[in-house]
Amino acid sequence: MRKIDVFTHIFPAQYVERMQQVAPGLKDAGKRVRGVPMLVDLDVRFRVMDTFEGYQQILSIATPPIEAYASPADASDLAKRANDGMADLVRRYPDRFPGFIASLPMNHPEAALAELHRSIRTLGARGIQIFTNVCGKPIVSPEFLPLFEAMAGHDLPIFLHPYRGAGTADYSTEDRSHYEIWWTFGWPYETSVAMARIVFEGLFDRFPTLKIITHHMGAMAPYFEGRLGPGWDQLGARTSDEDLSLVLKRLKRRPIDYFRMFYGDTALFGAYDATVCGLKFFGVDHVVFASDAPFDPEKGPMYIRETIGIIDRLPITEGERERIYWGNAAQLLKLPVDSAHQAA
Amino acid sequence: MRKIDVFTHIFPAQYVERMQQVAPGLKDAGKRVRGVPMLVDLDVRFRVMDTFEGYQQILSIATPPIEAYASPADASDLAKRANDGMADLVRRYPDRFPGFIASLPMNHPEAALAELHRSIRTLGARGIQIFTNVCGKPIVSPEFLPLFEAMAGHDLPIFLHPYRGAGTADYSTEDRSHYEIWWTFGWPYETSVAMARIVFEGLFDRFPTLKIITHHMGAMAPYFEGRLGPGWDQLGARTSDEDLSLVLKRLKRRPIDYFRMFYGDTALFGAYDATVCGLKFFGVDHVVFASDAPFDPEKGPMYIRETIGIIDRLPITEGERERIYWGNAAQLLKLPVDSAHQAA
Repeated sequence: MRKIDVFTHIFPAQYVERMQQVAPGLKDAGKRVRGVPMLVDLDVRFRVMDTFEGYQQILSIATPPIEAYASPADASDLAKRANDGMADLVRRYPDRFPGFIASLPMNHPEAALAELHRSIRTLGARGIQIFTNVCGKPIVSPEFLPLFEAMAGHDLPIFLHPYRGAGTADYSTEDRSHYEIWWTFGWPYETSVAMARIVFEGLFDRFPTLKIITHHMGAMAPYFEGRLGPGWDQLGARTSDEDLSLVLKRLKRRPIDYFRMFYGDTALFGAYDATVCGLKFFGVDHVVFASDAPFDPEKGPMYIRETIGIIDRLPITEGERERIYWGNAAQLLKLPVDSAHQAA
Repeated sequence: MRKIDVFTHIFPAQYVERMQQVAPGLKDAGKRVRGVPMLVDLDVRFRVMDTFEGYQQILSIATPPIEAYASPADASDLAKRANDGMADLVRRYPDRFPGFIASLPMNHPEAALAELHRSIRTLGARGIQIFTNVCGKPIVSPEFLPLFEAMAGHDLPIFLHPYRGAGTADYSTEDRSHYEIWWTFGWPYETSVAMARIVFEGLFDRFPTLKIITHHMGAMAPYFEGRLGPGWDQLGARTSDEDLSLVLKRLKRRPIDYFRMFYGDTALFGAYDATVCGLKFFGVDHVVFASDAPFDPEKGPMYIRETIGIIDRLPITEGERERIYWGNAAQLLKLPVDSAHQAA
């Protein structure tokens, strides 16, 4: 069966070279470039990919977000290099890479909007990747709203990737050194906060065609369904200094109903029961296959293999499995049907 | 079938009176006292309890934590009033309340330790309630370790309740006004951070009889099993400034194995699929029934009813259901078997 892995990360050569010039002190990224060959080495990537039947990847840049380490001018240049590099890979290896999702220089919102349109119209990007905050600013700050509007206009998805430091809650050095809690729990928390802001700012009401794919199966939303549902139905009950119940009146639906409008990917690193829980929350039409390769203990194959193992044994019909593996992605990303047939 | 609801909150009269004297500006708590009659009114509580067959409650104080609003001296007095008040209710209504868990003045660690022993030895407390941080300090700070040691010595459980502001990550006013995200996602995040600190500080190795019941079914641990497992097996791969892989060598087990040593309660506010996911993570022996009453949209009965509805349809044996409803709790809290027979 065809399998489109929609969230898998890469550093194209012309991007990583410039990244290391712009930010030679970016030690963590450097450690990953050295430690995870599949990030930069195409031969390694192809060998891993070849072990899985019908397996294709949608490419996106690995963290850190460009705006987290580069000036606005450098970020604009880096985003172009990232997108040109990924577009080139898609052109050269269409059977392996049916598409890519663009990176944007988010610390330069005008340039980000221009690069969004260029990536989609000229390079054929099938979506954009944004992070859960922009240098600590909430993703729903006014300067970023044109990006949501533009993606709703293109009717192509936004991929929401976690990154530390959402809104006001920053991770200090101390927290960071505390056993990478910032990664294990902080990232899903940040994703959840970004989702909440998108919901409560009414972006789904404002842009009805908006489609957002949340990395790691909706972060905290599915497991904390009870907090989103009856919990948030009581919005305001826990606050005295302002009447937050007005927020509920402003929205057209219950908060939880908006959370189900997001899409979730299956990148849960081998967690079967969580995958079942997430699938029940979003429904088969709102779940897409992704592995987050190559960031696993084997540096590439493990999360792909484990995630396929999970999807293969989900108690669903073959038609539903097909939608999760590639049907939903092909529709969301508007991938050519020919390519689907070739790989199937 | 007997049902022991192990996490349900109350404000005994002598406690709430003094709380409002000590902190008249405690508006949120005041709003709840006024808005949720079951917190303070025994008749209301009994009417709700009477609608559920075989239903009993273990009592604990509602948030805020005492140390969050009272000076060390006031906190010591308030904890005594809370515990005396709950012990009195247990004495007067043993069939309704088979036990209570003590509150401690955590901003006065010596007094907290003394109150811990007094509550258990003199008042018959069946555990203690601590919050996920103490005025922003991590719960594993050295001054709190005697409490863990003492509870391991008594072989009685610590109930871990979320509260905002763990360790270094504080919630600012801005975040707080952001739609109560601090409650919906912040609380489970804080619980998860506290669990991680308990794990990585090696408390389960140091105190082998330590038993900790996490409110809300292990917070983020079950859904993010993949991050705890293969994710944290790579501890250090994301950090350059120190070698965090040494932490793994210091521990006797994989990080995820320690997370399964916690207990989870079923207070997930009506989320069936999450309950299944949490139960799979912890196993039947490490899950206990709790509703978090009375904080639901109906101010008491709803979460009890919904949680019972979920446990009743879990795909487990009747014997397993019995363990979740009361068997595990009776064993953990060392409740008299007679009382079990009376109510069964």
